[in-house]
Amino acid sequence: MDNYREIELSRQEKFKGKIISLDVETVKLPNGEVSFREIVRHNGAVSCLAVNEGRALFVTQWREPFKSVSIEIPAGKLDSALEKPFEAIQRELDEETGYQASNWKKVYDFYTSPGFSDEKMYFYYCDELSRLKDTRPLDDDEFLSVNWLTLSEAEKLIDSGRIVDLKTIMAINYWKTIEVAQ
Amino acid sequence: MDNYREIELSRQEKFKGKIISLDVETVKLPNGEVSFREIVRHNGAVSCLAVNEGRALFVTQWREPFKSVSIEIPAGKLDSALEKPFEAIQRELDEETGYQASNWKKVYDFYTSPGFSDEKMYFYYCDELSRLKDTRPLDDDEFLSVNWLTLSEAEKLIDSGRIVDLKTIMAINYWKTIEVAQ
Repeated sequence: MDNYREIELSRQEKFKGKIISLDVETVKLPNGEVSFREIVRHNGAVSCLAVNEGRALFVTQWREPFKSVSIEIPAGKLDSALEKPFEAIQRELDEETGYQASNWKKVYDFYTSPGFSDEKMYFYYCDELSRLKDTRPLDDDEFLSVNWLTLSEAEKLIDSGRIVDLKTIMAINYWKTIEVAQ
Repeated sequence: MDNYREIELSRQEKFKGKIISLDVETVKLPNGEVSFREIVRHNGAVSCLAVNEGRALFVTQWREPFKSVSIEIPAGKLDSALEKPFEAIQRELDEETGYQASNWKKVYDFYTSPGFSDEKMYFYYCDELSRLKDTRPLDDDEFLSVNWLTLSEAEKLIDSGRIVDLKTIMAINYWKTIEVAQ
């Protein structure tokens, strides 16, 4: 590991926003030279593949970074660095879809863009879903709709370029591997 | 789509770096209210699952955003917004691993962090690999090593938390789905 390790020499905050901040770090490289790393900081996020009787919940929403609607698995940010991921994903599933699940499995922890961001996401599988009577309100600036898709329908939406979110493509491939295993 | 569309009212650049820049957009929401979006801009990237006789190429490198080594599929940035993705992935496979492939398949285009970034990645599968005599030099600030892993070995590295990169986890699940289909 020491052959690759970079040593942080200093850090300068260039932007501090509501969702992300951005630092430029000065680092010492393994060969002793000095370089710079542009790093986006994020509190972390959660997502889940929520399955019931052969169909999973997907959320359609606007994504301003590429100015299009995007069909994605339920997901959201940790409210703070202190929020527990398992509480956050239950809250997000409730808020975004109005469903709760009684069977949960933690699947993967991962970084979404390791080259320039520390955003860590906790990904869950859940099933045995039931509709909640009182759903929590969405965030004020969140507009979305919820759809049930079969694995085959979801794969077609990847092929047609309508699903373009990496975590959602990963989740659909994961779903396929567990379907095949059954 | 108009039920979800946000209208960009203005855009302010907060940071312009070598790899990324960061804007804050003022947007009009579907309900007419005004909100802000923090957006990281990126030229785009490429990655590939490169398989030969049941083993794939993985690259180990330092990731300063989470201060650890990371085991990932070969990947890299587009040199400019003009570079063609298919040329970029051939260049990156060569630079990072010293191999070239004679059989290529474009698999997916996706966004790595659609909530806050426009980074688009083009993901390929390739096989029929051969070693190049003269490999291109790495970038000046890039230190890495190359390993061949079987699918089973790669899955174990996910389970043990040593593979934590989303695109790499997606690629390994994709690899599993095509192995099962054969």
